[in-house]
Amino acid sequence: MSTLNDLLATILDRGARLVDRSGGRGDDPAALCADLLTSRGEASGVAIASDVFAAFDRLDADDRVAFFHALAEDFDIDVDAADAALADYRASKSADALAALIAATEPKRQMVFRRLNAAPGGTRRLVAMRKRLLPLLKTTPALRKVDDDLRHLLGSWFNRGFLVLRAIDWRTSAELLEKIIAYEAVHEIDSWEDLRRRLQPQDRRCFGFFHPALPDEPLIFVEVALTCGISESIQEVLREDREILAPDQADTAVFYSISNCQDGLKGVSFGAFLIKQVAADLARDHPNLKTFATLSPVPGFTRWLRRAAEADADGPAAEAADALAVEGWSDDAAALEGPITALAAQYFLVERRADGEPIDPVARFHLGNGASLHRINWMADRSAKGLAQSAGVMVNYRYALDAIEANHEAYEKHRKINASSAVSGLLGAAAKKMRDNQAWAT
Amino acid sequence: MSTLNDLLATILDRGARLVDRSGGRGDDPAALCADLLTSRGEASGVAIASDVFAAFDRLDADDRVAFFHALAEDFDIDVDAADAALADYRASKSADALAALIAATEPKRQMVFRRLNAAPGGTRRLVAMRKRLLPLLKTTPALRKVDDDLRHLLGSWFNRGFLVLRAIDWRTSAELLEKIIAYEAVHEIDSWEDLRRRLQPQDRRCFGFFHPALPDEPLIFVEVALTCGISESIQEVLREDREILAPDQADTAVFYSISNCQDGLKGVSFGAFLIKQVAADLARDHPNLKTFATLSPVPGFTRWLRRAAEADADGPAAEAADALAVEGWSDDAAALEGPITALAAQYFLVERRADGEPIDPVARFHLGNGASLHRINWMADRSAKGLAQSAGVMVNYRYALDAIEANHEAYEKHRKINASSAVSGLLGAAAKKMRDNQAWAT
Amino acid sequence: MSTLNDLLATILDRGARLVDRSGGRGDDPAALCADLLTSRGEASGVAIASDVFAAFDRLDADDRVAFFHALAEDFDIDVDAADAALADYRASKSADALAALIAATEPKRQMVFRRLNAAPGGTRRLVAMRKRLLPLLKTTPALRKVDDDLRHLLGSWFNRGFLVLRAIDWRTSAELLEKIIAYEAVHEIDSWEDLRRRLQPQDRRCFGFFHPALPDEPLIFVEVALTCGISESIQEVLREDREILAPDQADTAVFYSISNCQDGLKGVSFGAFLIKQVAADLARDHPNLKTFATLSPVPGFTRWLRRAAEADADGPAAEAADALAVEGWSDDAAALEGPITALAAQYFLVERRADGEPIDPVARFHLGNGASLHRINWMADRSAKGLAQSAGVMVNYRYALDAIEANHEAYEKHRKINASSAVSGLLGAAAKKMRDNQAWAT
Amino acid sequence: MSTLNDLLATILDRGARLVDRSGGRGDDPAALCADLLTSRGEASGVAIASDVFAAFDRLDADDRVAFFHALAEDFDIDVDAADAALADYRASKSADALAALIAATEPKRQMVFRRLNAAPGGTRRLVAMRKRLLPLLKTTPALRKVDDDLRHLLGSWFNRGFLVLRAIDWRTSAELLEKIIAYEAVHEIDSWEDLRRRLQPQDRRCFGFFHPALPDEPLIFVEVALTCGISESIQEVLREDREILAPDQADTAVFYSISNCQDGLKGVSFGAFLIKQVAADLARDHPNLKTFATLSPVPGFTRWLRRAAEADADGPAAEAADALAVEGWSDDAAALEGPITALAAQYFLVERRADGEPIDPVARFHLGNGASLHRINWMADRSAKGLAQSAGVMVNYRYALDAIEANHEAYEKHRKINASSAVSGLLGAAAKKMRDNQAWAT
Repeated sequence: MSTLNDLLATILDRGARLVDRSGGRGDDPAALCADLLTSRGEASGVAIASDVFAAFDRLDADDRVAFFHALAEDFDIDVDAADAALADYRASKSADALAALIAATEPKRQMVFRRLNAAPGGTRRLVAMRKRLLPLLKTTPALRKVDDDLRHLLGSWFNRGFLVLRAIDWRTSAELLEKIIAYEAVHEIDSWEDLRRRLQPQDRRCFGFFHPALPDEPLIFVEVALTCGISESIQEVLREDREILAPDQADTAVFYSISNCQDGLKGVSFGAFLIKQVAADLARDHPNLKTFATLSPVPGFTRWLRRAAEADADGPAAEAADALAVEGWSDDAAALEGPITALAAQYFLVERRADGEPIDPVARFHLGNGASLHRINWMADRSAKGLAQSAGVMVNYRYALDAIEANHEAYEKHRKINASSAVSGLLGAAAKKMRDNQAWAT
Repeated sequence: MSTLNDLLATILDRGARLVDRSGGRGDDPAALCADLLTSRGEASGVAIASDVFAAFDRLDADDRVAFFHALAEDFDIDVDAADAALADYRASKSADALAALIAATEPKRQMVFRRLNAAPGGTRRLVAMRKRLLPLLKTTPALRKVDDDLRHLLGSWFNRGFLVLRAIDWRTSAELLEKIIAYEAVHEIDSWEDLRRRLQPQDRRCFGFFHPALPDEPLIFVEVALTCGISESIQEVLREDREILAPDQADTAVFYSISNCQDGLKGVSFGAFLIKQVAADLARDHPNLKTFATLSPVPGFTRWLRRAAEADADGPAAEAADALAVEGWSDDAAALEGPITALAAQYFLVERRADGEPIDPVARFHLGNGASLHRINWMADRSAKGLAQSAGVMVNYRYALDAIEANHEAYEKHRKINASSAVSGLLGAAAKKMRDNQAWAT
Repeated sequence: MSTLNDLLATILDRGARLVDRSGGRGDDPAALCADLLTSRGEASGVAIASDVFAAFDRLDADDRVAFFHALAEDFDIDVDAADAALADYRASKSADALAALIAATEPKRQMVFRRLNAAPGGTRRLVAMRKRLLPLLKTTPALRKVDDDLRHLLGSWFNRGFLVLRAIDWRTSAELLEKIIAYEAVHEIDSWEDLRRRLQPQDRRCFGFFHPALPDEPLIFVEVALTCGISESIQEVLREDREILAPDQADTAVFYSISNCQDGLKGVSFGAFLIKQVAADLARDHPNLKTFATLSPVPGFTRWLRRAAEADADGPAAEAADALAVEGWSDDAAALEGPITALAAQYFLVERRADGEPIDPVARFHLGNGASLHRINWMADRSAKGLAQSAGVMVNYRYALDAIEANHEAYEKHRKINASSAVSGLLGAAAKKMRDNQAWAT
Repeated sequence: MSTLNDLLATILDRGARLVDRSGGRGDDPAALCADLLTSRGEASGVAIASDVFAAFDRLDADDRVAFFHALAEDFDIDVDAADAALADYRASKSADALAALIAATEPKRQMVFRRLNAAPGGTRRLVAMRKRLLPLLKTTPALRKVDDDLRHLLGSWFNRGFLVLRAIDWRTSAELLEKIIAYEAVHEIDSWEDLRRRLQPQDRRCFGFFHPALPDEPLIFVEVALTCGISESIQEVLREDREILAPDQADTAVFYSISNCQDGLKGVSFGAFLIKQVAADLARDHPNLKTFATLSPVPGFTRWLRRAAEADADGPAAEAADALAVEGWSDDAAALEGPITALAAQYFLVERRADGEPIDPVARFHLGNGASLHRINWMADRSAKGLAQSAGVMVNYRYALDAIEANHEAYEKHRKINASSAVSGLLGAAAKKMRDNQAWAT
């Protein structure tokens, strides 16, 4: 299947060289972007777009910032023109006036990005450009103007109607599989053998979303274990010598790892849909699967615990923090289960950000998708990372297909968190009181 | 390969039915569109979007007009809010203010369309909705507001980076081939045998553009004959008993039919790229092909001729029109070749619209793509349609890969038409004089 | 996927031309076959094999017979050598002696055919060669020696482990579909529209067997109707305006046409397995399907009836034959149902060949596969062909998966025909008596 | 794509269980084979065949020998019957008599194997059965009868017309790639990284032959390096930090490793064709490739050298053997190049087996294919294995497409070895004399 890129490459080699680009601006991507807007020829447009990317790739860090500033400022809207267009439209209400107004209030860089997208590999290169931009936003908020436009366009092109779900297994190409190894962000894959253990057994599954413009690149993927009951420990899930289950004996699908692959698509969200579609597909193919749940990390727990300990040096958080500071605490951790899981319940259900959402980013993702908080698992991740970030705690979020929509709406409207009674029951009396006093009492 | 649509259907069947849509507006698509904007749930959004399409499909002609009017008026921008946002941005120049301004000047129906696109088959159904809208624009210009937004979004989703070129031949599925029969718009395909003669012989090719969201629907396709020299007559190209050429003996590829398939994508142009990519692909695979040209109809010629005859009852157009009015004129047409091809040259090179473009729509398309006007062929289409619309005249537009870009720029900037000396030489003295007095003298 | 044929073609073009084949025997395929046996080079072997086929294709009818005679006589076994080898083996019982004996009793033409098979397209061309041979066997039984060897090898290469079942539907390539039209041997397909009606509706299926060496050629295919109850009339099955059934409402799959495609593979049987595999696949995919049956022609019925009428000018067969001789008898046929279906029951159950098998070839096929004779349908095929060959009678053979094996064994061992009581009940008293006196009383 | 195996499994589960196989012979594969020959039912035949394989898999080593003996003796031909059939045929020369003779001289085990092949996975399981048989042949020559029949049938089923060449690269499935790692027999692949270095770079290729009945199993594969000039050292070819060549700059394809994958297909040769087809394919796709050669091991060299040293304790072989016995000789090996490469030339060109073929098995393979002996490379394989088996010597065999056929014929007829003058020139005077006295003087 031939794509337009082949043609573009051909045309670039031929007619496009007619365009005189000897004016000394060959290395300034901002100047080339200006050319791009005035060019009328199709092929010359493609040629200039390619030159923009090539020039961008040659920039050092400082020049990149300068280029993004140029995009933010020199390719913005013209406020006076916008004013005039708005007045026109107020007067005439005509379609022409509206079109003119929309044109006047669209930053010029949007057209720049659209034309860049027409270069060979344009979509991929715009994603890479945004990957360069994102780290700058924290320190240079003005560049958010550029990012807003880029994200808007990528969101349109990567709309979910165009995503394709593909199973990833041991019959998948090595080329793609090595990307899975590289992109796994939750529980590192340390070798091809490790990868095989996650893909080949009949009670393991992996699925990813792909987009036609980046056919060899997963956008996001999820690893699934088919189990009896909801898994309580990641080490059990990944254990080398575990017994392998026949798929028709499993009653539960556990989503134990979900990784976004494209930094440059941050904020263009696919995760919610991936989980739901995989759940729906698995339910269709394996009618014996009744329960869909995650086994998820709690990345913010100990950080919060330390802050809480500082705030109240005599409280239970401080006591827990002290216990966790002892070298080798995890070797004999039974006594800690009660107090720390109670604190974890508080962390999820009571502590909130100003907007009412929980502190934990993974919780925000799954609860926002309509999952419920099903169980808090003690000593569920004994890896160094797991002990450090969450005192070994992991949680299960449950996706009950019948409840997803109601949970989602309740969470969106009232920040209500659907938690099992097992989880609510862990809350201490003080935490319960705090919760009852909150606007978003769950 | 499973797509999101499967999931959507599943989710629709389950959680989404929670949404209470019993408020009596189930049949009013405009009310449903309003719901769509306020809905926060993902699945309920998809459910409402499906309801919008279902409700739309039930509308009669009058109600459809009313619905489009509602989209034009009730889902427009809020001018006061836009004013305030613009003032804000003028003052602060902040990214937040810009985002607010862009939001305020985007008609609400754009978000409606984006959310409709998320329904199962959404893209296809939006294309179908636009197909209903387009015929109304002439009589109800206010609806152009709706069309502008729809075309903008479709243009973004059908951007050329996402199009895929596929060869269509006798190994193609019957399901797709019957669409080719149905969509052929230039030289009707009257049977599977006729289709086979265009696809199966080794000196025939057919290519189409496809989009991942409409995988079974060609967007546009072109039929190609590999020949020795540039064909002069469509009946020769399609003749049943013609001799078949070995591909490596051909020196020319003749594009003898190009058909747009999706009425609802009118104005989202693919044709220019299709021809150029097919030319590039053929050139790569068959190095012996040196010439790329069309054999094209002249749909506006006799209409213009009659108008010209009315305007000047003694001129050559009137004389020609009289000759063409004689029953059976084409049986002995040799004497008409001189005067009528001279008039055809005038029709292409001298007569222009107010914007300087030629009258003939096919000419506008190919000349705008960078082709040159290569030859005017007498008695090149002896079909009833050909005799009626163009007195049997057809023309060749030539795509010389090295000249496309220069031709394109000259046409775009100066309305300069690159015509061969054979064509220019047909012009009579009076026509030449007219031409020399025009701004876009060629 | 490249096959060896590509290489063979290449090698043929190069090194193989070294071989001097100028000895004047270039046009005598038998002489070339002799060369083939003595050639030691791989490429020259392939070259000579290609020459054999080319020379064979140039032969006229008489020379073809002569060539086959040469294969029968000049490439036979050497009886004296076989005698010596047999004596050797009797004495030594050694592996070497056995190998020598097997070699000595294998006709040389088997090696000729194996080497011919190595030519580009060899398998296909051997199948074509056998197609030429088969019609000669009746008049020239000596050529059966050649056919025995050819069929033996083809049977080995087309063993059922290498056959692939493929669904044929409206998404299948036009190239293959036109072969389906051409090969349909039971109920002619008269147009692409007719074909579409058999492939596209959701209650129709078609499957074929393919072999890797002839990837574009179906070996055999079957057309299936999903129905409620077992169909009684082919015109009902093929009726243009019939109601289309949802597949999950069907309880029966009716195999209404089965066609062998390759004359040259006659006697290398695939049919039994095709029906059973299609039944198994359908049963797996559509658990609602409970009954698998054919709607089959009775090609020998009226021929037998006329013979029986001649033998007994006063019997019921003569009476029936007289009635069928009346022009337009089928317009008012109700009165004939009783007597003719009784005769049909006799034709199937009582009349037998010397080997105990029924006279009807279709009956031999299905009963030999393990089907039972389920029902005799009156006025089930009103086509001219149906009226002529079977007085409009068709029958259903039923494939009950649980009974196939037992039926098959009973038929093979005792010529016992499993017939439903409805069919047996049609037999007249005289026929019953005849049946009871037969060795293979059913 | 569904295969017959699915059906077979289904039928086995159902009707076939009717067959009473309770006679106590369920575990004796030879008794089951006897059943197989008398069974007339298709499904019961398949069921028994499956039972044979299952019973065979349960045998211990001694019982396996007994089973093969039973096949050799109890399923042999009946000599008396053969005698009678031969006499018949001598008398009648009829086709029937010939068919009877052929049947009488075909060992019954051939039909056993054909019916076994019809079991699910039959071909694969027969290959596995032969893998068990082959090691027994040396000590038990009588079993060669069994192997002769098995190899005959496998040779027919794996005839080259059915083999498919597939490229193996980094886009190939992990499932297949891990088999490549396991099957590589010449230069071990020690990790996925090592594998990647042989598959992914643009100047590396790998191709394998596959058969439709074993779609996931390579039969044989070859690894190729595209180079400038013919490689002299395997360590250079495999070096991690070597410079990667653009394919269009290479002028030579070096086949540096060729591995048979299926022990059970030993003697069913694919290698010659693999090399020639890969050469032909590469030549077509990369016209710049002018030279095709191997870089091959010399597995028998030092073994011969030691024997020669024993035979003549004062000769050059003894001297060389002494030098090679010194620990660390390869660290300073320059002085040995002259004498040892001279001995290598003698080893290839002068020393022969009784049948005139060279001693070296790799040499027999390539020279028999029509290659020439192009160069002897000193210190070309410094691995422990290379030093041990060939004193570090490797050779290039060259496949000159124009010369293959002539070389092949000369070698087959006269044992003439086409060696370059560089190789012949290495021969010492004594060796030359020996050579000139041989029948197959090269």
